[in-house]
Amino acid sequence: MTVVLAVDAGGTKMAACVVDAEGRLGPVARSSTPQDEAADAEAVWRSLAVLLEPYAERPDLAGVGIGCGGPMIWPAGVVSPLNIRAWRGFPLLDRVRQIFPDVPVRIHNDAICVAVGEHWRGAGRGADNVLGMVLSTGVGGGLILGGRLVDGASGNAGHVGHVIVEPDGPACTCGGYGCLEAVARGPALVAWAGEQGWPSAGRDARDLVSDAGRGHPAARATLERAGWAIGIAVASATHLCDLEVVAIGGGVSQAGPLLFEPMAVALRRHARMEFARDVRVVPAALGQEAGLVGAAALVLAGDRYWSAS
Amino acid sequence: MTVVLAVDAGGTKMAACVVDAEGRLGPVARSSTPQDEAADAEAVWRSLAVLLEPYAERPDLAGVGIGCGGPMIWPAGVVSPLNIRAWRGFPLLDRVRQIFPDVPVRIHNDAICVAVGEHWRGAGRGADNVLGMVLSTGVGGGLILGGRLVDGASGNAGHVGHVIVEPDGPACTCGGYGCLEAVARGPALVAWAGEQGWPSAGRDARDLVSDAGRGHPAARATLERAGWAIGIAVASATHLCDLEVVAIGGGVSQAGPLLFEPMAVALRRHARMEFARDVRVVPAALGQEAGLVGAAALVLAGDRYWSAS
Repeated sequence: MTVVLAVDAGGTKMAACVVDAEGRLGPVARSSTPQDEAADAEAVWRSLAVLLEPYAERPDLAGVGIGCGGPMIWPAGVVSPLNIRAWRGFPLLDRVRQIFPDVPVRIHNDAICVAVGEHWRGAGRGADNVLGMVLSTGVGGGLILGGRLVDGASGNAGHVGHVIVEPDGPACTCGGYGCLEAVARGPALVAWAGEQGWPSAGRDARDLVSDAGRGHPAARATLERAGWAIGIAVASATHLCDLEVVAIGGGVSQAGPLLFEPMAVALRRHARMEFARDVRVVPAALGQEAGLVGAAALVLAGDRYWSAS
Repeated sequence: MTVVLAVDAGGTKMAACVVDAEGRLGPVARSSTPQDEAADAEAVWRSLAVLLEPYAERPDLAGVGIGCGGPMIWPAGVVSPLNIRAWRGFPLLDRVRQIFPDVPVRIHNDAICVAVGEHWRGAGRGADNVLGMVLSTGVGGGLILGGRLVDGASGNAGHVGHVIVEPDGPACTCGGYGCLEAVARGPALVAWAGEQGWPSAGRDARDLVSDAGRGHPAARATLERAGWAIGIAVASATHLCDLEVVAIGGGVSQAGPLLFEPMAVALRRHARMEFARDVRVVPAALGQEAGLVGAAALVLAGDRYWSAS
């Protein structure tokens, strides 16, 4: 039985494992991504390459699937991840191909890989029209319509984090205003909560979610605001794309009902077209491994998730 | 050379014509849609059937494509158009099939047919990722991604009129708030302009556009507000779907630069992701015939525009 090597190139750590045709993961090898100022592109590459080279001669390897933070030139796989500063225009796909010259090597945005994983083997399984969302340091996503991954003109479809939820709202890292990401990404939550009196110094979104769970009013209000914004974005996406399922993962989604309940209220207020009322918004099911599962699916289920030549 | 019969079932008039494989239209036959209170479903059907029956025996007819206002149960073609009150749960597709039992008969939302027409033979030709919009009594649309029409879960993808542009904005006919349609549909423009001092009594959006062209300040401000709202919706759609072209038609779009220029300003403010900056927003090219061209394409180019079984 053939396997695929799945790769997740992240700002904190690199990860790789084999995945079989059923989506089952082998042991995951991990290394820390060099983050210090002195780390150059090659040092970061070495932190990944050491994970991959042991698989180079493996005879049952049918391909390699890579998830990496955007932006990237796609499908060329020249990456400039926001969270890996040493890689600017780094030819990641070509480098991996040099290790695995005889099998297909495919790459996509890491949030797209999460969405693909959730569609193939997770919370979106069985539905043909699914938006996968990742709420974390950024807000990313991927879009499956008609049972197939939507790439869009440049491989960037699924950027639900830049759906506008508050036109006069806060400035976004993209340069725009009022994007979902500007309201709901982890650092934005921390900053807003701080303004509402939550002690934010030196703390992150995980702390915020934890405090909200213990009833801190400003922390709760922050998650309520974020949930509301997510509900508006989901309503817009559902109306535009006629979605069946929205699967929401990422660290911020760990807030659970404190986030999902206000989201549901906003969704009920705004998703009013009859066809949109039944959209199911569910927590992602695969946890941290979703991106690896999805990266593998770029090869293992390429008929649905890979359209580039 | 085979032809397809294209049908447009509208609230004001019914229309039908043959379309050849190049998208060229034959003479268009039209009849008025009975609008009086006494008109029942069968009377409305007769106004359409008289246009279709002359084609029943035509030997070169390869199929029939129908555009009709929504909502409808799709692909079953059981229609309840907002603008044809006598049809509620009317089995339009089955009725047309009774006239043409030996060829494929296909139906879609009329705004989707416009988008398909513009993609196949109009302003979106050559692009693979296109949103077609119709600004009229309502705001409709259709979505082509990866070169193929997106249907969504129930044939309702493309409802860009219900993307949320102003979460605390006006109530929408759908029951929601702040949808693009609630701001930018013709009757909403007339109502808002009236509140700003434009003499609206007994007048419609066509009059508003005309007065704006002559420099009436409240009429201009109304189009500027609508253009701004359209720009926000287009930015959201472009980020979510990685669009190349947005083609805008319908009566309200006749306002031209008075609408498109504020739209472009809002789009530049909000569509800031690098991949989104180059989206081209263009006027629709096919005019009133776009819906007929698109209806024909459901059959003539079914590989791209028809996914239902």
